[in-house]
Amino acid sequence: MKVFIAGIDGYLGWPLAIYLSARGHEVAGADLLLRRQWVAEVGGVSALPIASREERLFAFKEATGVELDFRVGDLTDYDFVKGFFREFQPEVVVHLGQMPSAPYSMIDQAHCVWTQQNNVINNLNILWAIKEAAPAAHLIKLGTMGEYGTPAVDIPEGFFEVEFRGRNDRLPFPRQAGSWYHQSKVHDSHNTHFAAKIWGARATDIMQGVVFGTRIAEMGDDSRLRTRLDFDQCFGTAINRFCCQAVIGHPLSLYGLGKQKRGFLPLADSMQCLGLAIENPPDAGEYRVFNQFENAYSITELACLVKGVAADIGLPVDIKRYDNPRAEMEDHYYNPDRQHLLDLGYQPTRDIKSVIKAMLLDLLDNRERIEEHADALIPDIRWDGGRKRSEVIG
Amino acid sequence: MKVFIAGIDGYLGWPLAIYLSARGHEVAGADLLLRRQWVAEVGGVSALPIASREERLFAFKEATGVELDFRVGDLTDYDFVKGFFREFQPEVVVHLGQMPSAPYSMIDQAHCVWTQQNNVINNLNILWAIKEAAPAAHLIKLGTMGEYGTPAVDIPEGFFEVEFRGRNDRLPFPRQAGSWYHQSKVHDSHNTHFAAKIWGARATDIMQGVVFGTRIAEMGDDSRLRTRLDFDQCFGTAINRFCCQAVIGHPLSLYGLGKQKRGFLPLADSMQCLGLAIENPPDAGEYRVFNQFENAYSITELACLVKGVAADIGLPVDIKRYDNPRAEMEDHYYNPDRQHLLDLGYQPTRDIKSVIKAMLLDLLDNRERIEEHADALIPDIRWDGGRKRSEVIG
Repeated sequence: MKVFIAGIDGYLGWPLAIYLSARGHEVAGADLLLRRQWVAEVGGVSALPIASREERLFAFKEATGVELDFRVGDLTDYDFVKGFFREFQPEVVVHLGQMPSAPYSMIDQAHCVWTQQNNVINNLNILWAIKEAAPAAHLIKLGTMGEYGTPAVDIPEGFFEVEFRGRNDRLPFPRQAGSWYHQSKVHDSHNTHFAAKIWGARATDIMQGVVFGTRIAEMGDDSRLRTRLDFDQCFGTAINRFCCQAVIGHPLSLYGLGKQKRGFLPLADSMQCLGLAIENPPDAGEYRVFNQFENAYSITELACLVKGVAADIGLPVDIKRYDNPRAEMEDHYYNPDRQHLLDLGYQPTRDIKSVIKAMLLDLLDNRERIEEHADALIPDIRWDGGRKRSEVIG
Repeated sequence: MKVFIAGIDGYLGWPLAIYLSARGHEVAGADLLLRRQWVAEVGGVSALPIASREERLFAFKEATGVELDFRVGDLTDYDFVKGFFREFQPEVVVHLGQMPSAPYSMIDQAHCVWTQQNNVINNLNILWAIKEAAPAAHLIKLGTMGEYGTPAVDIPEGFFEVEFRGRNDRLPFPRQAGSWYHQSKVHDSHNTHFAAKIWGARATDIMQGVVFGTRIAEMGDDSRLRTRLDFDQCFGTAINRFCCQAVIGHPLSLYGLGKQKRGFLPLADSMQCLGLAIENPPDAGEYRVFNQFENAYSITELACLVKGVAADIGLPVDIKRYDNPRAEMEDHYYNPDRQHLLDLGYQPTRDIKSVIKAMLLDLLDNRERIEEHADALIPDIRWDGGRKRSEVIG
């Protein structure tokens, strides 16, 4: 199929181009390369060195024989998006092209506004460009499990049947997101659902858990095909941060009680799931929601997993709790469904430990890059709008 | 109290300035005067002639003895908003300063994107400016009953207790808005709720019904103090449109089956309710939702009410059904709560007919203005993205 990837230079977008190409799909994509700038802005760096866009294209050609149509462009520029869609005629659009960091969106007014403006407008542009230039295309929109927040009831996949005062309805499950970034994803979910209702757009809204990992099999041993891996307070997810901390002997940093539960999945599972969504499109006018994760763990359970694997390869690490810069529930019920992807054939990675081990070995080769930017590991962006470096509390 | 009105030149903003001033509050406000441009853009005009900003300020001074601080400025310009708040130090901010039309937001990609960008960003700016320049201020945000859509269950005020798979939680009531404009209001509700959670902002989110009417008592007989009244397909609400149609002998135009139910309230009730919200602020960190309407009627019931009152003053009118340009449920359950304002002392206008009669008499004086712009009464902006003038179907 002809698949357009918005955000093709990113942590997920780049491996997805490689994964889909290996499965015989025709891929094109766009990226403004902003992630590279944002990470530098907050004092971070990709723990694994990544190739430039030009080197990536060259390596992609060598590995696959295909010239990848990867253009630098701004998705908030409607003419760019519509023109590209008109030319490429995608059958599927995978939208990964957004600012993805909660703390980055919480820095100040300017970052909050920029995040919502960028994410909401570029998703609207993609919806309109599909309508006007490729109306049969299936939009796969990357949302996040964080859209739901942490309710005291089970989290269904997008919709639930409720009884209220003796009457029944199937309603969208309420969203209680925990950052300006997560709120932008909630807005996108509402807009996307509405487009399916009024235009017959076909859409899959992926509520993804936290992804971790450094590689997928389809990259082979070509280092120019590697994806980025961030560990700074903004763009580093918890488990990537833990692995980077483990290789430089820094205590694994939990926020607050460390009992926060989240859904997690390895990079290869994320690719597998996106592939399943692509190859099993919804009907016209159908808006479906997939909760996409391998399993739910508490942050402490995750840190203990990393600590255990690190010990196996001779890396002794501590776990420390830091005062929590975020406003979030630190101890809560968490039981999200994830049946839709299993129904499509998703085979979850059962052996998380071997994924973590491979990550640690990749990262050990790049220990100095992490050490040089270790300051970025400890958060100081606070949900109350201030800046104050978190301190060890236990 | 010191009350800042965002959108002080508008249909509600201008009467609110007069109403609050008469009750002894100190009022200031901002407006970019865009409503005057939008209405012209879609071929409409205010059925009642309205004074320029300068004439309004002059008349306000004559009537109240007060120099009104009403500045022309853009709420998406953060420095303007924050600077004004820093100077004025509002205790209450009433945010009426948004693009308020569903059809206008549905015209095309540019109008959709402009609407969401303007409404989402200016609400974020107001939240941030309160935090940074007037942190104790109470935000009263104008939302709309349209945020809820038309679920098959009762509509509570913002939140509901649900049981799901044997567990219980109090959750935000799901929003299923029916236009890009209404979606922008949903986004604002989510953002405002989040600001209350993380910053302790105090916020009242008003889910208002359709407002109608031409005057409030506090305007006296000074025509320079009158508010606007629109009847075009974009900015004219159903009942204003019906009254304008009645005075020029145009059939009252229902969309589709005409069984759509909505909440309605007279302009004077809207002022009364906003006054109650202002004078009864929530606690710090409290986000409360008021459903604000006098009663729920079907569009056909409303049209029959207007027809009856028009007949009483010698204006014979027909009612016609037009093919519906919108994608909406035309026959549905509708039972929203509206207890919170009653608890604060809201005294609903029970005599809707006398309000309609006063409107018709005011409009009769301006029959020619309506006749000259009668083309704008029949819709052609369609929810499927096209343009096609609706035709009579019954």
